[in-house]
Amino acid sequence: MTTSIDLNCDLGEGFGAWSMGDDAGLLAVVSSANVACGFHGGDPTIMRGICEIAAARGITVGAHVGYRDLAGFGRREIAMPATQLADDVLYQLAALDGIARVAGTRVRYVKPHGALYNTIVHDAEQAAAVVDAARSYDPTLTILGLPGSEVLRIAAVHGLPTVAEAFGDRSYHADGRLVSRRRPGALVTDPDEVAARCLQMVTTGQVTSIEGEPVAVRARSLCVHGDTPGAVNLLRRVREVLTENGVPIAAFA
Amino acid sequence: MTTSIDLNCDLGEGFGAWSMGDDAGLLAVVSSANVACGFHGGDPTIMRGICEIAAARGITVGAHVGYRDLAGFGRREIAMPATQLADDVLYQLAALDGIARVAGTRVRYVKPHGALYNTIVHDAEQAAAVVDAARSYDPTLTILGLPGSEVLRIAAVHGLPTVAEAFGDRSYHADGRLVSRRRPGALVTDPDEVAARCLQMVTTGQVTSIEGEPVAVRARSLCVHGDTPGAVNLLRRVREVLTENGVPIAAFA
Amino acid sequence: MTTSIDLNCDLGEGFGAWSMGDDAGLLAVVSSANVACGFHGGDPTIMRGICEIAAARGITVGAHVGYRDLAGFGRREIAMPATQLADDVLYQLAALDGIARVAGTRVRYVKPHGALYNTIVHDAEQAAAVVDAARSYDPTLTILGLPGSEVLRIAAVHGLPTVAEAFGDRSYHADGRLVSRRRPGALVTDPDEVAARCLQMVTTGQVTSIEGEPVAVRARSLCVHGDTPGAVNLLRRVREVLTENGVPIAAFA
Amino acid sequence: MTTSIDLNCDLGEGFGAWSMGDDAGLLAVVSSANVACGFHGGDPTIMRGICEIAAARGITVGAHVGYRDLAGFGRREIAMPATQLADDVLYQLAALDGIARVAGTRVRYVKPHGALYNTIVHDAEQAAAVVDAARSYDPTLTILGLPGSEVLRIAAVHGLPTVAEAFGDRSYHADGRLVSRRRPGALVTDPDEVAARCLQMVTTGQVTSIEGEPVAVRARSLCVHGDTPGAVNLLRRVREVLTENGVPIAAFA
Repeated sequence: MTTSIDLNCDLGEGFGAWSMGDDAGLLAVVSSANVACGFHGGDPTIMRGICEIAAARGITVGAHVGYRDLAGFGRREIAMPATQLADDVLYQLAALDGIARVAGTRVRYVKPHGALYNTIVHDAEQAAAVVDAARSYDPTLTILGLPGSEVLRIAAVHGLPTVAEAFGDRSYHADGRLVSRRRPGALVTDPDEVAARCLQMVTTGQVTSIEGEPVAVRARSLCVHGDTPGAVNLLRRVREVLTENGVPIAAFA
Repeated sequence: MTTSIDLNCDLGEGFGAWSMGDDAGLLAVVSSANVACGFHGGDPTIMRGICEIAAARGITVGAHVGYRDLAGFGRREIAMPATQLADDVLYQLAALDGIARVAGTRVRYVKPHGALYNTIVHDAEQAAAVVDAARSYDPTLTILGLPGSEVLRIAAVHGLPTVAEAFGDRSYHADGRLVSRRRPGALVTDPDEVAARCLQMVTTGQVTSIEGEPVAVRARSLCVHGDTPGAVNLLRRVREVLTENGVPIAAFA
Repeated sequence: MTTSIDLNCDLGEGFGAWSMGDDAGLLAVVSSANVACGFHGGDPTIMRGICEIAAARGITVGAHVGYRDLAGFGRREIAMPATQLADDVLYQLAALDGIARVAGTRVRYVKPHGALYNTIVHDAEQAAAVVDAARSYDPTLTILGLPGSEVLRIAAVHGLPTVAEAFGDRSYHADGRLVSRRRPGALVTDPDEVAARCLQMVTTGQVTSIEGEPVAVRARSLCVHGDTPGAVNLLRRVREVLTENGVPIAAFA
Repeated sequence: MTTSIDLNCDLGEGFGAWSMGDDAGLLAVVSSANVACGFHGGDPTIMRGICEIAAARGITVGAHVGYRDLAGFGRREIAMPATQLADDVLYQLAALDGIARVAGTRVRYVKPHGALYNTIVHDAEQAAAVVDAARSYDPTLTILGLPGSEVLRIAAVHGLPTVAEAFGDRSYHADGRLVSRRRPGALVTDPDEVAARCLQMVTTGQVTSIEGEPVAVRARSLCVHGDTPGAVNLLRRVREVLTENGVPIAAFA
């Protein structure tokens, strides 16, 4: 194995007095930080704190942009005009990049959050809005998303770098789709099992599907969800197992 | 007269479906646009619209940063830690600058809004927070504020360019203070009178105080409040009278 | 003619420093006021002001509840769980009713706003959430909505009074559907024409469709949209023409 | 001992996806629940959940009203007109009361939150606004606050019931003031010590001050802050010790 793999995680999703996830712990184990930009979570002070640690540790900063919906944590689809969405994405991206630059780093990729992430898998209009916003701000920004999604396809058409991600803590169907969170077995929570699946994906390009057959999962970045209590331990185990097996962990950007 | 004078005005203070002031009209008469950044008013779509027109017409863009208070339109003082305020200012400034850059221009100055503007006249801690945010983002940013204010003093100490402004539509006391809005005669609304006062300030460095004596008012920028219905006519008349008297109108930055 | 007709209009849709429509003017011509409750527009001070005038003039107060979306003015559909929607509706309804009671009146009906109004025409789950919220708070509340909508059907099933409304300023197709706002002729803006159409609907139960044939439009309440500049004049003309033709104008509740 | 004592705690201060404190645990140990109303924390779904449990268990519900400031969690003083504050308080109070009634209970007292709580200790104008809002909605509502505060004085003048509270987990000076949170020893966190202090206050009307002398602390309600991790254990121990010593725990209202 010579190719490195990236570990990305959502961070900075508290707001004011409310916290979410173990940001400090996660910043010790990821190579890329998806930083919330204030529309679904995150506030300027949280954003600065994350960026300062990321800059000090060489962790790559990405803009985790979302719908403007604090009450719904960005998890509710909002039917909005594409141009308005592009403006909202640009605003969030620029705000985070400014904070990142003051902290000594900068935004290198965009990974949409929650309902927006899901919508731009299939909705070409909203996907194009996200790509437009990113490209107009900085055409060297990478778009991080689901393999086969509209957003990655459109980003590639417009010449933006793209990175596909896989989920170390989610089950896959044999046809490549994620198992719905409503089904039992959708989430894998045992650290050893998650680590083994991550290693399998990185070294073989496949993972065992919930139906038992192998399914192709090619990704340059692995995501573990940061809002589960054991996320730091999961990622630490993933990091250990990958490192023991000679897989370097490094950001894609 | 060879020195030029700047005309600045608050713009883009609508939010979503709500409008405030005649942005299109004002953009035809100002040389500098104080653009709201989303915390007291303004939203990403409004910000982009203003920046695009400003870029096309060569109007200088400033960040009109405020307290996070849509319900109070940034007019209510919020007692907040200075570091948190600095983060809020940086966030707003960076968001607007990103939008401005995509529109083909950039933010060249910072003028705080409403209660924040008033607070940093005398509050050194909050004034320093505003200066810190601006300087950390871009040390060439000008700070626009009230002559003699803490924020201009601190900005100068830290090497930032400063510009003092005077108000064409407000009465002054003989000691240089503005007449309180609660007193009759505080606001001057007749276009000819406003224009005459502006000309007097620019050519003599003085204006007639409400007590009848002249008072020194030295300013490189004149502000007329944009949220009054006749603001566009006022500014058009100011522009005419200044131009007729050989005073060039040009942004300071 | 012995049956009276109600004139309803959306009111109180400003927020903080932002105004929307001519509330004072509209309160002189309507019999029922759909009062925004703070989620898409409206704030406690605006709500109190409207309720005080409504109480003094005997205008019936309705809760104009919407999605929590100030940035989108409640015009963007939000995909949210029905139980959460019911909670949001109850919160808005109770807040307005408390303010109305202090002002000497009370909420007598519920008319959802914007995207929520449109969604519950066809979405039985969200419609049931609105009905549940209203019924749990006060089972004598009337639901005001579109004829044939899911929300009126479900309200009737649960024993709530229902009132169907027609639009005096909108064109209808021969099959009873409203002409899309994107098509020319969708909006009728001439006061005499609007008044004539309203009279036609009230006296004949029909209106001339855009295709030229009459279409049945039975409604106990007529709505004219308050956010158009001439709304007050439109409603004043409607009121005159109905009164001249012996149609009493009176709230349904 | 025949007089009962009330145990009150702040509850329901999460928002959307964010939680704050152990609401379920606290609802097992308090007699009165100060329920956040959506302006500093709390949302309609959280409010309903708390009210349903409170109704089932016979816990008294109070309106924990605050400044409209989600980003600052209501802990930042906002300089606002008193009439506007009264409207904001009425809105929150009515919203919670409506939800409480649907859940089978109702709001019986008002306890302001955070910066508003502190401001109305000394600010007569804002204190009067809170009292006005409560009295106009329901003149039988109790005001819960700091002994000697303006808000309790004004409430009494207007004939509202008042209840003074003491803090089981805070140190007092010999002159009756609370020790500032910035000083060491301000917070008492040992369950046995907190319980002993509570028992001392209830049985003797005094507590040992940080200077070592006893200080009079007369209160019909004891507050323990719910946002500290061990709050449930603290309150459980307080409840045990009071009960073992024959002090009945019961809501004041």
